[in-house]
Amino acid sequence: MTLTANSQPSDDLLSLDPAAQELLFTAARTANTFTDDPVSDEQLQAISELAKWPPTMANTNPLRILFVRTPEGKDRLGPLMSEGNRAKTLSAPAVAVLAVDTDFHDKIPELLPFRPQMRENFVADPANRERLATFNGALQAGYFILAIRAAGLAAGPMLGFDGAGIDREFFSDRPWKTILVVNIGRPGPDSWFDRLPRLAHEDYVQYA
Amino acid sequence: MTLTANSQPSDDLLSLDPAAQELLFTAARTANTFTDDPVSDEQLQAISELAKWPPTMANTNPLRILFVRTPEGKDRLGPLMSEGNRAKTLSAPAVAVLAVDTDFHDKIPELLPFRPQMRENFVADPANRERLATFNGALQAGYFILAIRAAGLAAGPMLGFDGAGIDREFFSDRPWKTILVVNIGRPGPDSWFDRLPRLAHEDYVQYA
Repeated sequence: MTLTANSQPSDDLLSLDPAAQELLFTAARTANTFTDDPVSDEQLQAISELAKWPPTMANTNPLRILFVRTPEGKDRLGPLMSEGNRAKTLSAPAVAVLAVDTDFHDKIPELLPFRPQMRENFVADPANRERLATFNGALQAGYFILAIRAAGLAAGPMLGFDGAGIDREFFSDRPWKTILVVNIGRPGPDSWFDRLPRLAHEDYVQYA
Repeated sequence: MTLTANSQPSDDLLSLDPAAQELLFTAARTANTFTDDPVSDEQLQAISELAKWPPTMANTNPLRILFVRTPEGKDRLGPLMSEGNRAKTLSAPAVAVLAVDTDFHDKIPELLPFRPQMRENFVADPANRERLATFNGALQAGYFILAIRAAGLAAGPMLGFDGAGIDREFFSDRPWKTILVVNIGRPGPDSWFDRLPRLAHEDYVQYA
C-alpha cells in the first residue's frame, strides 16, 4: 500500500466506520464563519462529557472549560481575542475557552484514589505543574476538538488571544490558565479555503 | 438533562453513532498488557494517515512519529523507558515514539503555501518554537491516540522516559524532541484496573 499526502487510509485497516472517519478526521474542516443556528447547553454538556474519557497522565484531567455563549460573555471575551480572530469569535454561537488548572494536583486524591500521596510530588514545583498541565490539557484539547465534531458541529481552534487578559477577566478567583479558544457552530458561507496539504508519509513517520 | 460524573451523553445530542463513541471515547481503555497479535506496518500507516487531518496552528503539523517494532529497535528503546514502563513497552507489538520537529517552521512554505513568509516569524526564537511545537504536537498526540482506537487497537500513552536519551539514540541527526511514548496492541490479560473516576461536570465546566 502506498499512501500519498492526500490519500485516505484503506477502510479494511480501520475498525471505525467510514462515515465516522469522515465526521471526525478526514472530511471535517476548521470553520471560519458560522450560521445563526444555536448550539444548546445540552450539546455543550454532551461534548464535554464525551471528551472527558480518553487518557491523561495519572488520570489528572487538568483541562477546564468555560463556554461563552451569552452577549454579556461575548462582550467580555471579544476585546481579548486578536484582531484577526475577533469577528469570527463574536459570530460563533458558542465559544469554548479551554484552560488548565495549574493546581490540578489537589484533585489527585479524588481522581487517583489508590495513590492519593502522588499529590505531594507536585507541591514544590509550580513551573513543572504548569508544564504538565499544559501538555495534558493540550492532549485533552485534541480529544475535545474531535468531540465537537462528534456532535455534528464544526470547531474553530485559535491561539491568537490575550491569555493573561482572559485569565484576569474570567478566572481571577482560581488558578486556571487559558491554553486555547475554540469556536463552535455550524459552518456558514465561505467557511474555509481549499484544504491545505499535509506532509508526505515519509516526511513525518519513521520505522525502527 | 442531568449528567453525573460517570454517565454517558445522550445519543440524540451526538451525530457520532454509539458504537463509534464507545470505540474512541467511552469504552476504550488504556492497556497495560498486550497479546502477541502482531500490528502490521500497514495498520500503523493507516493510523498515522487518519490522525494527520485534524487542525494545528497555521497547519504547521509539528508532530513526528517513530514506530518501534523490531527487536533491535526495542533493544535501543527499552533502557530509555522508566522502570515502571519498561516491561510493558517491551511486550507491546508496536510502540510509537511521538516527537515534535522544533524546526517545523521550515515546512511552512510547503504546508501554508498562500503565506510562506510566516516562516520568518519563527526564525529568531527557538524557545518559542519549541513551546509551540510541543503544544501543537500534544494536540496531534490526542488525535493520534483516538486514531489508534479507530484501528480497533488499544493505546498506552506514557510520560515516564528519558526524553533526552531517546532524542540522542534515535534523532541525533535531526531537531526532533520526544514528547510522548505510546504502546500499541491488543489488550492482554489483566490489562487494566477498574475505571478511574472523572470530575463532576460542574468541577471542570463553567458557562458564561
